[in-house]
Amino acid sequence: MQGTFEDGTVRVGGDARQRFYDARGYGRPLSGNRIELAPVEAAHLLFRGDLDAVVGPDGDRMGFRPFLVATDAALAFVVYKDLRDRGFYLSPARDGWVDNPAGADFVVYPRGKGPADDAVEHRVRVAGERETIAAAALGGMVLAVVDEEGELTYFETVRSAAAGADGDGDEDGANGGDAAVTAPASAGASASRYDPPTGLDAALLADRAVAWAPPTDLHDRGFYGQRLHGRNAESGPLQLSLVEAAFLARRGVLDLAEPRVVERGRAVEGERFDRRLRAYAALRAAGSVPKSGFKFGADFRTYDDFTTVAEMDHSTRLIRVVSPDHTFLPRDLSLDVRLAGGVRKRMVFALTDVNEGIDWLSVARLTP
Amino acid sequence: MQGTFEDGTVRVGGDARQRFYDARGYGRPLSGNRIELAPVEAAHLLFRGDLDAVVGPDGDRMGFRPFLVATDAALAFVVYKDLRDRGFYLSPARDGWVDNPAGADFVVYPRGKGPADDAVEHRVRVAGERETIAAAALGGMVLAVVDEEGELTYFETVRSAAAGADGDGDEDGANGGDAAVTAPASAGASASRYDPPTGLDAALLADRAVAWAPPTDLHDRGFYGQRLHGRNAESGPLQLSLVEAAFLARRGVLDLAEPRVVERGRAVEGERFDRRLRAYAALRAAGSVPKSGFKFGADFRTYDDFTTVAEMDHSTRLIRVVSPDHTFLPRDLSLDVRLAGGVRKRMVFALTDVNEGIDWLSVARLTP
Repeated sequence: MQGTFEDGTVRVGGDARQRFYDARGYGRPLSGNRIELAPVEAAHLLFRGDLDAVVGPDGDRMGFRPFLVATDAALAFVVYKDLRDRGFYLSPARDGWVDNPAGADFVVYPRGKGPADDAVEHRVRVAGERETIAAAALGGMVLAVVDEEGELTYFETVRSAAAGADGDGDEDGANGGDAAVTAPASAGASASRYDPPTGLDAALLADRAVAWAPPTDLHDRGFYGQRLHGRNAESGPLQLSLVEAAFLARRGVLDLAEPRVVERGRAVEGERFDRRLRAYAALRAAGSVPKSGFKFGADFRTYDDFTTVAEMDHSTRLIRVVSPDHTFLPRDLSLDVRLAGGVRKRMVFALTDVNEGIDWLSVARLTP
Repeated sequence: MQGTFEDGTVRVGGDARQRFYDARGYGRPLSGNRIELAPVEAAHLLFRGDLDAVVGPDGDRMGFRPFLVATDAALAFVVYKDLRDRGFYLSPARDGWVDNPAGADFVVYPRGKGPADDAVEHRVRVAGERETIAAAALGGMVLAVVDEEGELTYFETVRSAAAGADGDGDEDGANGGDAAVTAPASAGASASRYDPPTGLDAALLADRAVAWAPPTDLHDRGFYGQRLHGRNAESGPLQLSLVEAAFLARRGVLDLAEPRVVERGRAVEGERFDRRLRAYAALRAAGSVPKSGFKFGADFRTYDDFTTVAEMDHSTRLIRVVSPDHTFLPRDLSLDVRLAGGVRKRMVFALTDVNEGIDWLSVARLTP
């Protein structure tokens, strides 16, 4: 059996519809029993020996190998074959082939379902390791990255407008079994219940601030700052990050003018400071407690069910603040997500514009 | 007891030499029983109440708090106090105070030793989270990073000219107990014993290459490439990264002109391709087997005792290739080192110039 290749599509006659479309979810039906296949589907059928050859526009008969070279479909083939091997049927996301093809390369159906059914399991975008991926393109889809040796990594990307840990709707991420993640609403309320006093004596010291004699609750119940006298100190001056200091100064908690703190922050890290402050404030408003994510290479780690430092659980998310027009290198994404998974936290990118709302983009490793 | 602050140094008289220098390793002796202290040492003595005040040039009497503000010593104080709390004596690395002060902020003595002894345990450089650190400054020293909230992370940095896993001389890194790391010389020899055939049929496909019908040993004993037919395939075409393909083409293993492969590599990732190829070749020459580090966000993971894929152990190092004039952001360093530690591998930066030798910079978390 053979197909003919023209205008980016392979057409197959005979009993192709029954054999390939109806029985195994390849291509889309044309009139009669004919079907048309995307190149990656034809490559897979050639690879399996279900098609003997594809005849090109110049009459050249191509087997698997020359067809793969002629269509440059190696990357897509690796992903298509892997998903087929995992028991999925999938369709190329072409106009007229599937609903809402924009932004996806494949639409993957639930196991046991195919293109004639109505359900979609994943929308998949294929990327090589060296391509850059716009943050705007992520969310509501799976990114399949083919590394330089042809190994595959799937990332599930989920977008949310809510800053709380329950907002991202990802139920099978690294924290799937963690009750702390699924019940932050009430827990968060208890953190926001702490109401710090006002007018505390404080000073800016280089790239940080110090509150000289704060009540112990500022640290123990608000979880602001860190003891200047070391981790084991139970009282005394608190070092505050400039983000914490700006947040507290705005509320009158510190006897420091907020603009002075913000100015210092911008001097240290430029406009990133404003973004980080916005993300910090949004997390606090949602009942989360953000602390430095430095040890994990992130902006913040968040305690989503914080009550007091004495009863503290592990942090549940790592937050990296980026601009909404940020582009990811797949390798950087891989690094962040792998680290987060290894410490049982969820990786969340806060796409933060200086003036508009924040989009929370959760990214997790996926095994389809 | 009080000191006088002038020209960046605090001088203390009375029995200061016996009390502070001889007994507890603060400062350096002057004539008689007088000593001089660096600001961070004076701050620590003020903090402890061992000094009552420091008198400034204008006659102002300063306690701990105004002295810390006046000298902007908060960052250094956090590190100094932490190392003291851990039981170390240490000296500010000032000209005339210690040997080879360049590049360090503190010289730390072995526990039980002090400035009057001859041994040095660590040379420590202090950095804030937002400072950039030149790669050239790392190696043979400990980087103490104070994050924005005042939390401390220590990184031990070790430099080596050798590409093999035994070359970096770091004995207490993440792989301290791993025999594979300490005996790579003979193991490496077994990997290099595999001698691939020449003239194998191959083609470039976008950002990778394919060897169409290689002997199974090219993968199984040489560990080149990955099966195009998926991870579980035991034969068939091999996908090769462009780095692998260029390395093999240079040796005549592939029927591809090396310059064509290199040209494709440069088209995909610019001059980074040449650096990565040099690092790859140096690792192979040292008996290591480098494979894609994508899943760990690195350039390569290395199998330092590889024999065959059937008997393969875990990879032992993650390699990131950077230019010798690279500057690190502490947060990126933290991310790489944390991830490597979490998967029990050692993080190594290959400082690779396009034309000169490669320096291998190993960085590991340290608990002093």
